Amino acid sequence: MRMRKKKHLDERLALCDNLIIMDIDDRNEQTAIENKNYIDFSALFGNDNPVFLEIGSGKGGFCCEAAKREPNINFLAVEKSANVMVTACENGADIPNLRFLLGGAQYLPKFIKDESISRIYLNFSCPFPKKQYASHRLTAPRFLEIYKRLMCHGAEIHQKTDNMHFFEFSLEQFSQNGFSLKNISLDLHNSDFEGNIETEYERLFTSKGFPIYRLEAYLDN
Amino acid sequence: MRMRKKKHLDERLALCDNLIIMDIDDRNEQTAIENKNYIDFSALFGNDNPVFLEIGSGKGGFCCEAAKREPNINFLAVEKSANVMVTACENGADIPNLRFLLGGAQYLPKFIKDESISRIYLNFSCPFPKKQYASHRLTAPRFLEIYKRLMCHGAEIHQKTDNMHFFEFSLEQFSQNGFSLKNISLDLHNSDFEGNIETEYERLFTSKGFPIYRLEAYLDN
Repeated sequence: MRMRKKKHLDERLALCDNLIIMDIDDRNEQTAIENKNYIDFSALFGNDNPVFLEIGSGKGGFCCEAAKREPNINFLAVEKSANVMVTACENGADIPNLRFLLGGAQYLPKFIKDESISRIYLNFSCPFPKKQYASHRLTAPRFLEIYKRLMCHGAEIHQKTDNMHFFEFSLEQFSQNGFSLKNISLDLHNSDFEGNIETEYERLFTSKGFPIYRLEAYLDN
Repeated sequence: MRMRKKKHLDERLALCDNLIIMDIDDRNEQTAIENKNYIDFSALFGNDNPVFLEIGSGKGGFCCEAAKREPNINFLAVEKSANVMVTACENGADIPNLRFLLGGAQYLPKFIKDESISRIYLNFSCPFPKKQYASHRLTAPRFLEIYKRLMCHGAEIHQKTDNMHFFEFSLEQFSQNGFSLKNISLDLHNSDFEGNIETEYERLFTSKGFPIYRLEAYLDN
């Protein structure tokens, strides 16, 4: 079941059309899956800078700030809800090194060439607390296999969450699927970590006194 | 510098002599290192049951209780401080499937055959918080290499600690040194985990409201 569309969603999305490079919704999903249609990052960004992906970018607080701070990195923000992404697009309208992809993470290998991504951010992804929905978590093995394909040599995954059980699950899945872990923090806001970009969720949870969990995962080869 | 000996330590240790299978102290360390002297577990325990190792057994609260609960497992408790181990030996005097080894973990491969241990417990090991002493932590790479040698097929390491930074370090080291992780708990006493045996330290820290961290590590091959 699709979420009810926000008022004027189509008009708002149309205004951001130049920022959105792909739109996979229920209607054209099948076509998209059948035909690989790789994004040409050089043409899209006008340079060959490294590409960082944020999967589940929500309203875009993180990707907008990250793209502003690092003008020599190209950011691609992936979000499956148009209702949410439209706000991110509006906020990121003037940022030249930021583009958006509307769709679910499972379709990324159809649009992104293998070994072309330098970093993947998973910020406060939905934890899907019920065990029967564990395969929907963005650190479930089926997604880790996708990330492995997309990651170039030396690439990293940076994950943050406020959900303890989701973080436990993620640590286990990364270690069981060939990733090594570094810079783990079990209480980010009371750690030595510098340069953190707070997301909207993060501000909310931190203000309530909850710890934020963070990890970096990488492949050895 | 050696810790000052407890009063009557030698007499107390002599009374437990039948339980202590090895004593590596500053004086005979060199000899011990030069000559491999494998423990014959079958002869020691009178059976071929699996052997579980606790490294850093302190006053023995955990190993005594674990050995009582699992009479078909042989427990070897390793502790480098005679002052502390003497209490463990006195408490464990009547437990047939429990023996003690007085010495540091770094010497274990001289006394224990490769691939002969089914489980290793690391309970509230000293966290050595200062970075320059990180190599002393019992989950530092030099110790993980020792555990890898000792572990038989399917063996596991079970670690508990109250120290957040030591746990972060341990998660990283295990993942970076070929181990996979499972059953991670970032708050053991508010988790689903059943059958926990509380150590002396654990009771103290839990009573103060601190979370207890726990993991299980294993090798894939």
